[in-house]
Amino acid sequence: MHINENYRNLKESYLFSNIAKKVSEYSAAHPQAKLIRMGIGDVTLPLPKATVDAMVEAAREMGKRETFRGYGPEQGYGFLKESIAAYYARRGVMLDEHEIFVSDGAKSDLGNILDLFTEENVALIPDPVYPAYVDTNIMAGRRVLYMEANEGNGFLPLPDYAVDADIIYLCSPNNPTGAVYGKAALSAWVEYAHAKSAVIFFDAAYEAFIADPSLPRSIYEIPGAKSCAVEFCSFSKIAGFTGTRCGYTVVPKGIMNGELNRMWLHRQTTKFNGVPYIVQRGAAAALTEEGFGQCMANISYYKENARIMAEALESLSIWFTGGKNSPYIWLRCPNGSKSWDFFDTLLKEANVVGTPGAGFGNNGEGYFRLTAFGNREATVEAMERIKELLG
Amino acid sequence: MHINENYRNLKESYLFSNIAKKVSEYSAAHPQAKLIRMGIGDVTLPLPKATVDAMVEAAREMGKRETFRGYGPEQGYGFLKESIAAYYARRGVMLDEHEIFVSDGAKSDLGNILDLFTEENVALIPDPVYPAYVDTNIMAGRRVLYMEANEGNGFLPLPDYAVDADIIYLCSPNNPTGAVYGKAALSAWVEYAHAKSAVIFFDAAYEAFIADPSLPRSIYEIPGAKSCAVEFCSFSKIAGFTGTRCGYTVVPKGIMNGELNRMWLHRQTTKFNGVPYIVQRGAAAALTEEGFGQCMANISYYKENARIMAEALESLSIWFTGGKNSPYIWLRCPNGSKSWDFFDTLLKEANVVGTPGAGFGNNGEGYFRLTAFGNREATVEAMERIKELLG
Repeated sequence: MHINENYRNLKESYLFSNIAKKVSEYSAAHPQAKLIRMGIGDVTLPLPKATVDAMVEAAREMGKRETFRGYGPEQGYGFLKESIAAYYARRGVMLDEHEIFVSDGAKSDLGNILDLFTEENVALIPDPVYPAYVDTNIMAGRRVLYMEANEGNGFLPLPDYAVDADIIYLCSPNNPTGAVYGKAALSAWVEYAHAKSAVIFFDAAYEAFIADPSLPRSIYEIPGAKSCAVEFCSFSKIAGFTGTRCGYTVVPKGIMNGELNRMWLHRQTTKFNGVPYIVQRGAAAALTEEGFGQCMANISYYKENARIMAEALESLSIWFTGGKNSPYIWLRCPNGSKSWDFFDTLLKEANVVGTPGAGFGNNGEGYFRLTAFGNREATVEAMERIKELLG
Repeated sequence: MHINENYRNLKESYLFSNIAKKVSEYSAAHPQAKLIRMGIGDVTLPLPKATVDAMVEAAREMGKRETFRGYGPEQGYGFLKESIAAYYARRGVMLDEHEIFVSDGAKSDLGNILDLFTEENVALIPDPVYPAYVDTNIMAGRRVLYMEANEGNGFLPLPDYAVDADIIYLCSPNNPTGAVYGKAALSAWVEYAHAKSAVIFFDAAYEAFIADPSLPRSIYEIPGAKSCAVEFCSFSKIAGFTGTRCGYTVVPKGIMNGELNRMWLHRQTTKFNGVPYIVQRGAAAALTEEGFGQCMANISYYKENARIMAEALESLSIWFTGGKNSPYIWLRCPNGSKSWDFFDTLLKEANVVGTPGAGFGNNGEGYFRLTAFGNREATVEAMERIKELLG
């Protein structure tokens, strides 16, 4: 057998293991310290009641012969695809049901869709970045080019026509920076993709955090996107499904006269067997009027955390992105600190844990990520401590 | 962008769509006909009560802040991996918890694991065969060699040292033939794999149907297998999880000094995000004493169907494999009929729907698959009709 030696080129990321190690060493030395964790990108509020009720009912259906369900369609049940199509239609984006593929999450699809592309494709990926975009390309031996995201462009890089790329990764609202692309910038990317015969992978996992109606929540709000962009979305952040696992990918029929859509259908029917019926019922419940109201109440809770955090940083005159239409805040470390030095200071002096920006790429050095997924009291207290430390 | 043109070499399978078309045409012309369907490979009995109860409880846990779960470990929760390890230990197979990877099903893993192997590997695949083995290799441009499964070898081919292969697919109990390898035959395959430095992909999805204690339910019952074989298994047929989605793959640390295990871990943590917590609780409940008893009661029901079918075929002196330690019966079409001709005869003269063997490969021509997943009354009646037709 011949193994795929590209795997040997993967760099182990020590970001979260280093954080865990530093935190546990500090806790052991200071058992009285009340640490507040603002480093995780995971939700903490329970699932909306409507989704739990739907899953309990679906589990019971599976226990009765008359309502039992075996293999479902690999690309998702019609009832869920219709709910997703209606969710887009409310924003004026019309999708054909056969363009929507339900899956176990955006992370799986972002990796698996690379099956459809040869190793010759050049991937264009922002720095800083969600590490899986890079690793999934390294695994296939693809060349990765970085686009510079920095304070100069508000961590929202625009296309450079001197660069040739085949696969363009955009994430908006961005993880880790919380920055959100406007329509003009996304239009520039769509134009660039057409000029280069490239495909855009648009990661919209955080779209439900966008409140500003002038900001696009889907790349398909941009004319021309349906012939060059694949969109990845998920119930993880909409409905708290990080441990419940349901996402969806839109592969429009406008790309390559429908060939990419047919290839993805072939890939999914051959290497995937659908999402649990129970989970699909839960996801559909999240998009009902009642369920979506409960989802938005949870998102409002996190966004109020973000607002409190943003207000504290503004009062300290610290530069940051995010915090308004995103659960992430990306701040410049005070006094020119490096990321890990600021991590240590915050841990030791304020007992607050965040994520050093340097862990997300070269351009993250000197920056720091805080997340709004904690509880209100802890968020308020963390900001009090930070104001006292840096004020 | 450069698409993966190997996808253009995939042959569309019209097997199940042709069956559906013929059945619907016949039904339209004969609305009074009471058709009995014995073509599907899907379970029909409801989920065991213990699994439903566990999933209802887990769904409720997700609705409360104290018991809510976000992202879980990509490779599965410890509680489920321990249950799986104990399930193997009861058969004398000892597995390290880190060799077990919980997933959304064997179909996904059988496709995704090919990520770890270059396109130079030659795949050795039985004919007739479960079509996904072939298609997942064609998608990556790999050369596929077939091993001949036929009446002469009881549809259980043995290694041919004149053939060089890198990846060997074995499925036992077999889909579609129902044939089950004994220990001597599997030992010969393990020896061959070592001689050729090949890896065996052992598909054990139907192992729970094996009652004969002399037949291996896991390839790890064979000495030497832990350094050359990956085993794929699933709760689909053990616990009726075809629409609930949970499987597991064992990648022993004995293969390539642990490198394959580390690569699969890297692949799964990068391109997968774990199985729903709710579903993992259901799967763990299926392996408790109470839950497993309920699973085995369902399997006994299907096996009694298979026994009734086997008895009818024996009374007609029709040659077949399977039916004893498998939910499938693979029979030689009477009077030298071709597969599709026998399909038409059975549909028109007995109103019974099966699957033409020719749909599973060249060696399937002249054979026919019946499945034992229907209900008792329909199975009994179908056999009465077949006996009347062919007796």
